[in-house]
This record gives sequence, structure tokens and C-alpha cells, in this order.
Amino acid sequence: MHSLELPSIPSISSLVQEQALAHQDRLTKPPRSLGRLEELAVFYAGARGQFPVPTPRRAFLPVFAGDHGVTEEGISAFPATMTVPIMQNVVDGGAAVFALARHFDVSLLAVDVGMWGDLVDSPRAQIPAITRKVRRGTRNLRLESAMTTKEAEQALEVGLEVAHSRASTGVDVVGVGEVGIGNTTASSALIAAHTGCSAESVTGRGTGVDDQGYRRKIAVIEQAFGRLERGAGPWIIAEALGGLEILAMAGFIIGSASHRVPVVLDGLIACAAAVVAHSLCPGVERYCAASHCSTEPGVMVALEHLGLRPLFDLSMRLGEGTGSILGIVLLRSAVAIANEMATFESAGLL
Amino acid sequence: MHSLELPSIPSISSLVQEQALAHQDRLTKPPRSLGRLEELAVFYAGARGQFPVPTPRRAFLPVFAGDHGVTEEGISAFPATMTVPIMQNVVDGGAAVFALARHFDVSLLAVDVGMWGDLVDSPRAQIPAITRKVRRGTRNLRLESAMTTKEAEQALEVGLEVAHSRASTGVDVVGVGEVGIGNTTASSALIAAHTGCSAESVTGRGTGVDDQGYRRKIAVIEQAFGRLERGAGPWIIAEALGGLEILAMAGFIIGSASHRVPVVLDGLIACAAAVVAHSLCPGVERYCAASHCSTEPGVMVALEHLGLRPLFDLSMRLGEGTGSILGIVLLRSAVAIANEMATFESAGLL
Repeated sequence: MHSLELPSIPSISSLVQEQALAHQDRLTKPPRSLGRLEELAVFYAGARGQFPVPTPRRAFLPVFAGDHGVTEEGISAFPATMTVPIMQNVVDGGAAVFALARHFDVSLLAVDVGMWGDLVDSPRAQIPAITRKVRRGTRNLRLESAMTTKEAEQALEVGLEVAHSRASTGVDVVGVGEVGIGNTTASSALIAAHTGCSAESVTGRGTGVDDQGYRRKIAVIEQAFGRLERGAGPWIIAEALGGLEILAMAGFIIGSASHRVPVVLDGLIACAAAVVAHSLCPGVERYCAASHCSTEPGVMVALEHLGLRPLFDLSMRLGEGTGSILGIVLLRSAVAIANEMATFESAGLL
Repeated sequence: MHSLELPSIPSISSLVQEQALAHQDRLTKPPRSLGRLEELAVFYAGARGQFPVPTPRRAFLPVFAGDHGVTEEGISAFPATMTVPIMQNVVDGGAAVFALARHFDVSLLAVDVGMWGDLVDSPRAQIPAITRKVRRGTRNLRLESAMTTKEAEQALEVGLEVAHSRASTGVDVVGVGEVGIGNTTASSALIAAHTGCSAESVTGRGTGVDDQGYRRKIAVIEQAFGRLERGAGPWIIAEALGGLEILAMAGFIIGSASHRVPVVLDGLIACAAAVVAHSLCPGVERYCAASHCSTEPGVMVALEHLGLRPLFDLSMRLGEGTGSILGIVLLRSAVAIANEMATFESAGLL
């Protein structure tokens, strides 16, 4: 049985949301003419529990990495040995998420939750990295449980720790990223297990697997389901499917929400983590904003399950937290507009 | 007859585009995993005619203002007397476009092409403003031509002048904004006239007109069409429908394209201006990127006519250039990623 105590999630203040919404109609624009940006400003005030609320400047995005035993089934276009060098590339500042984070002043942290190999101390390192290996890679979810319940708890605790630690130094908004060859297989499986959808309806091509690999990917997920009882709880599902970085992301979402720090989700893996977080701690989803809908079909299934709507669709499927950062940029814009625009009264237009 | 000489539009280098596209596949990510951001980076290199191309830092967005005689038909939720104070609010830094421009370092310029009233020299002024009044408001397009051909040319020249002037001081990318009560009526009419679509299919609620006003708006456009011969040329259409700020925007798009400066469009009015620009100078559309699709139905009709696809849909309908700025942010992000990411070779991942 699991023994981990999860933090409580504060409720969202509907009074604050109403204040934020009423303010939108005082601004010098036709009512609702900023569309989703108005919703984002209201969401942010509600999550932070205050109105007016300062424009979110301090943004943080941890990139969690882990390996997946299921890669031995040939379900990815990239070899499993790529997880470490891809994560090293994040640390060394060569990844897309680094370019975006630098451009938009989002601080990054690399967290190894369970890669098979290790990051090296690189003279090129651009961001801090911490090692919190729960185990070296998950087991093959097609054949056996990806990890033990204890390991699932430990992985979740890594994310909680990162969230608590960052909240204690002050943060306004977070995103969440990952690296892990094979993790779209685990994520699609998690989304299907939690929503009851078919494996096929939530499975995409990941990094770009071919037709044969795609059919294997679906078959692998279906075989994993064969070991799961219908109505299995979130910990049973987590140990069956993994992955280490996904559990850590779920813990990070829960920890952030417990501190009233809104989480801007990324693509498939972040959405799977949010689904896991929601099962463990109902209410966390009210602290989540979707960014993009990705080309992975599981994202829309997960977001609908969570009651969230994507902000944009740029046909992205890179992960790492790239979509989160663009979502954070929109969130900041929305709150900046609400804070900086004149009202009809202040502009003398009443 | 019109006598204005329009600048020539340089062709886009397909060689440069191919180089930019090939570079995308050398970057440390699955092929095409950045989706539309990859397209944007290729678009930008092609428009600038060079690869590699520096990340666009210097962004500029002029806000053109004009009044519309058709407002006497009751086709807007806002009174026509609001154009001047709304534009004054842009100049004084109270508008949404100002908050976004400040946040993302986009320089603004207010241009009065034909408001009935005048901006005042305000001690609160945050941005430069210039007066280039062609006439004080257009005539009522339901009853008569909105302006003379000479006036249409003069309005277009205002935009050309702004583009040439800014290009001479150095600029990497531009957006285009406007203020003008009644200008969604003129814009929908322009889009319908150039594409052959029905008035109804391109007409929305603008600032939020009620059902009765909406039906009037469609009827007004249909009556204006009654005076237009089928197959009328762009100058005939321009003088029939206006408006002053829309012609200036068209001139600004043409002028920018002539200097290889890409234009990120905004909503309905900018799209109408792009349709006019395209009719006058085929090829300008290859220097245009769509930002959002707005809630105004005419936007998608215009963009399809131009062969452009919107980048996002945030249910915005504010104008002023607000969507342009978010589009410029995406364009910058796309080029920054292309410039700053490691390649598989540089990261030692080959």
C-alpha cells in the first residue's frame, strides 16, 4: 500500500475570479474582445488568490528525465540510448527549450529521475542539474509492472520536492518539461487507463515511429492493459505503466498547485502527468492551464478529461516543455494587459 | 485614373528557403517536431533573402486611424465619436496594444490618416504620433463613394511613406494596427468585393453590434455593392468602400514588402488591407504572415484568398495590432530557436 502523504490543494476563490472578470469589462476595449487572454488573466488571479495580482515575472520550468524499459519493443523512432545525450543537450543549452527559456526569461532545472546513464559535469553547462535517480529506467510495461509502488511514490516525491523548493524561493508561474525516449508510449497508456479510452485513440507517432512501430506501440499498450484490472486506482496504474519522469511531473504539478502556483502544461507527457495528478489530488487541474494541443491525439483526450482547452495549435510535438514556455508567454501577456491598460474611467472615456 | 507608382516587390528566394528548411532537420529534435515554428523560421529567412538570418529584434507597428461616414447607418456598437479618444488612449499608453508592445519591445507609431477630430498634444503621450490627414472621415459608403481615387492614392501613400521611412532606419519585422469606428464594415465589404463572397459570409459583429445592427451592416454592404460593377479594379473598389486607414495599411504592407520586411497581419482590418495590397501588388502576400483568425468570419476568407494560414485562435477581436504583436513574438521565437539550437553535429549526436 502507498504511504505517501500528499499536500492539500487550496480551493480557487470565485470572489477573486469575479473581481478579475469585472475588471476586464472596465478596460478600454469592447467587452470580451481579448477572448482567451481575458480568461487567462482571470485564471491567474483565481489561482494566485488575489486581485489585482502582479504580472508573473518569475517563471520556472523543470525538465525531468527518465528511461523506459518498453523501448526494447521498438516503439520509438529514436534509440533508447538517446535519452542521456538529449538531456545533456538541454543542460548544455543546445535544446529548443533552452532557446525559448532564455528568450523569455524562464529558469530551467534538469532533474534526472531515472535515466539509464548519467549526465556528465559539462564545461558547457548552462543550467543547473540535479540527480534524484529512483531507479535506472523502468521495466518493460508490456511484460511486467514498470516499477514498484514504492518507486512510484519516490518518483512523485522528487517532483514534490522540486515544487516545494522552488516555491520557497518565490515563483509566479511554472511549466513542466521532460526528456525520455519511450515516454509517449507510457503517457498514451496512462491517459487511456485513466479515461477509459482505447489505446488506439490516444496513441500517436511520438518522435516519428513508422507504421509497423506504430502498430507495435498500440499492441504493447493493449498488452499492458491486460494486466490492469478495470477501475484500478492511480497508484496501481502508475506502477504498471510508469514512468519515472512522468510521476515526478505529476508530483511537481501537485506541489505547485498546493502553493497556488499555476502550471502551464506542455504536450502529451505533461498532460498524462496532469491526469495522474488529478487522480491523486482532485482539484489540481484548476491550477493547470493547457498550452498547445500537439499532434499527439492523447493530448485532447487528456485535456477534455481535465476540463481544459488548449490555447493554441502549432503542430508541435517536441516536448521538453517547449509548449509550456509559449503558454507562459501568453499568460504573462494576459496579466500584463489587465494590469497596464487604462480603464474607461481612468482614460476619461465614461 | 490613378497615377501612383507602386514599388516593385522582390521575389522570394526559394534557395534560401531550402537552406533554412534543411537546417531545421539538422537541429537536435525529431524532424518537423516544431511544426508551424519551423515554417515561420523558413518564411522569415525567405522574406529577408538570407540564411542564416539574425533573430528579428527590431519590430515596428504603426497604428493607423481614420473615421467612416458609414457609421451614420448605426452599424457599430460604439459611437463614431470614440475614434479620437480610443486613438488618444493608444498614444497615451492605455491601450492593449501598448501593454503588449512594451512587454515585447515593439515600437509603435500613431498615424492619423483621417479622423474627424484631432489628437491633442498630451503630457501623458507614450508613443510618437504623426498627422497625415487625407480627409476628415470617409463619406457614407452606402450612399456614395467613400472617397475619390486621388484620396485613396493619398491614403495609400501615407502607408508607403511610413514603411519607407522606417525601413531606412532599420527594422526586421513589422505588424500593423488600426483604430476606426466603423472599419469592420468597410473591411468586410472590401474582402467581399475582392473575393466575390457574399456580404453575409464575411460580416461579423465588430465591437459587438446587436442583431438589428448586424442586419443593417450586411444590408449596407450589399447596397454599396449595388454601385460597384462586377470585376471592378482595386482602385475603383477602394474609392467606393474606403477607408482611409485601411488604404494606408495596404500601402504600409506594400512598402514593407518592397524592402523585404515581413508583415505579421492582425485581424479583420489588417487582412482586408492585405487583400487590397495583394490586388494592387501581387506578391506582397508572400511577405505576410497571418497571426490569429479572430472571431470575425471575414478573416478566414481573406487569409484563404491570400494563401495564408492563421497561427493561432484566441477568440480575439480587438484590433489595434494586438494579434500582430503576439504573432511577432512567435516569429521571433521561431527564428531564435533555429539560430540557437545545437545541431546533431555540434552536439556530438551524429
